[in-house]
Amino acid sequence: MQYDSIVIGSGPAGMSAAVFMARAKLTVLVIGDTYKSSLINGQVVGNYLFADGASGEELLSQGVQQIKKYGAQVLVDEVVDVKEKDGSFVVALKDGATHTAKTIVIATGVSYTPTGIPGEKERVGRGVAMCVACDGPLFTNKPVAVVGNGNHAASEAIELLAHTKQVTLFSNGREWKIDPTLLKRLEQAKIPLRKDRIKGFIGEKFVKGLELADGSTVEVSGVFSAMGVAGAVALAMKVGAVLDNNFIVIDRDSKTNVENVYAAGACTGGNYQIAKSVGEGCNAGVNIIKKLKGLDTYSDLT
Amino acid sequence: MQYDSIVIGSGPAGMSAAVFMARAKLTVLVIGDTYKSSLINGQVVGNYLFADGASGEELLSQGVQQIKKYGAQVLVDEVVDVKEKDGSFVVALKDGATHTAKTIVIATGVSYTPTGIPGEKERVGRGVAMCVACDGPLFTNKPVAVVGNGNHAASEAIELLAHTKQVTLFSNGREWKIDPTLLKRLEQAKIPLRKDRIKGFIGEKFVKGLELADGSTVEVSGVFSAMGVAGAVALAMKVGAVLDNNFIVIDRDSKTNVENVYAAGACTGGNYQIAKSVGEGCNAGVNIIKKLKGLDTYSDLT
Repeated sequence: MQYDSIVIGSGPAGMSAAVFMARAKLTVLVIGDTYKSSLINGQVVGNYLFADGASGEELLSQGVQQIKKYGAQVLVDEVVDVKEKDGSFVVALKDGATHTAKTIVIATGVSYTPTGIPGEKERVGRGVAMCVACDGPLFTNKPVAVVGNGNHAASEAIELLAHTKQVTLFSNGREWKIDPTLLKRLEQAKIPLRKDRIKGFIGEKFVKGLELADGSTVEVSGVFSAMGVAGAVALAMKVGAVLDNNFIVIDRDSKTNVENVYAAGACTGGNYQIAKSVGEGCNAGVNIIKKLKGLDTYSDLT
Repeated sequence: MQYDSIVIGSGPAGMSAAVFMARAKLTVLVIGDTYKSSLINGQVVGNYLFADGASGEELLSQGVQQIKKYGAQVLVDEVVDVKEKDGSFVVALKDGATHTAKTIVIATGVSYTPTGIPGEKERVGRGVAMCVACDGPLFTNKPVAVVGNGNHAASEAIELLAHTKQVTLFSNGREWKIDPTLLKRLEQAKIPLRKDRIKGFIGEKFVKGLELADGSTVEVSGVFSAMGVAGAVALAMKVGAVLDNNFIVIDRDSKTNVENVYAAGACTGGNYQIAKSVGEGCNAGVNIIKKLKGLDTYSDLT
């Protein structure tokens, strides 16, 4: 089936978008791990109006119950890719399963995680890249490294094979956290997995290689930064949404520049408060309802 | 004392701004009647995340407790005027008392109430006006009518005396709801109070008079629309905040074009959901905190 909307991220922003859409009887799939929201760290939440004194965990648990009650489907899983195809969005999970939807809401929180290699930021666009779908073609038949230890990095490495066979995956000293399905595909593609810690970049103007902790060097023309899960920056780039300083640019209706792509919460910049995220999620939900139902105005009263 | 901020309006938007500022130990005065928020009509609120199933009245009551707990002062009263003076804002109540603050948040809800006289909208700027502070000088020594039955209308009529002595107050068929203090000032100024219902305007291009229900006519050059309480439109005009289609224009930080004037909630346009109002109130509160404390970023975690 094609969902009316897939919400990527299940913190306050994503759940707020979902509750409005579900109440309006849109078919909604929320993908993410609610209990990894940064709200989980809130011991006593006092600034979210009408819910004084609850813990972050209690609130998140109430939110999951609330969105399910109104009919949203919730999938505790990890999104590794999203692509626009024939006017729909195809969202891929770590086990290779896909779901499609008419609209998507990116609500993953602040989730661009730098690799931690000194000099990364200065080299973005000069050898350091953050999205294979965007920049893969720049490295056709060249040696590249993907830095990351999870499913997002594994997916980026596999996607790179369309452009070059010389792909190495570096965990930069971290333990591997890759789903068996993806691990098997890495093995089949003979992509080397290296746990070496990376000390720095070689090449001033353009990246020419990586220097490892043991003093050895690896020659690469490109380094794809893919730590953690596929975050807002990676997802936005995959669908062509405009970023400003690693935040997704939205208007007051939570719309991005890409038709049917919305974003809400910490990934759009501004403050990190629950209220702001819930408000932007509401705006995304309400505007998707208006769009899909062809309404000029929509009010969910009571 | 001078408050750090006065919040005009005590629904979800105003209370959300207040809770952030109070928690940051700013001195905050919230003026309004919480139980006149349109949220009071909500029987079972299901779309506000983390507070499923409560009634609007329960939520509003929780909100008042919450903002008081963190130190906001609450005044159940009616604002009839606001003026910028020497870098502060002077907010006047219906009994003539004033309070001053470094910043204000306009969060009165959708509160421009048309007079209901046919043809009013088309005549705005051609005899129909909505703000004595803005347009009073256009009617120097000319006969004018103020239409409204409450303290807002009474205040506008009294303010008009600085420009013309020929002021008549029309309730347009409604019962008078004017505070004794203001009523006494109207009497002292010999401003006639007429309960006649108004049938229409005389004058096509410019207002020349009013036609009353009994068939008689009144010659006036201007009609000030001042139904209900001083709403967002009236307050915004008094401080020079830009409007778009009767909504206050704000940026993503809930700032208006006027330094230290913020707005949040239904008076800024967009959807009428609680979540959106609470989010914008949060943005106003957080940005006032940053401004007054000289901070680049501010997070109220937990």
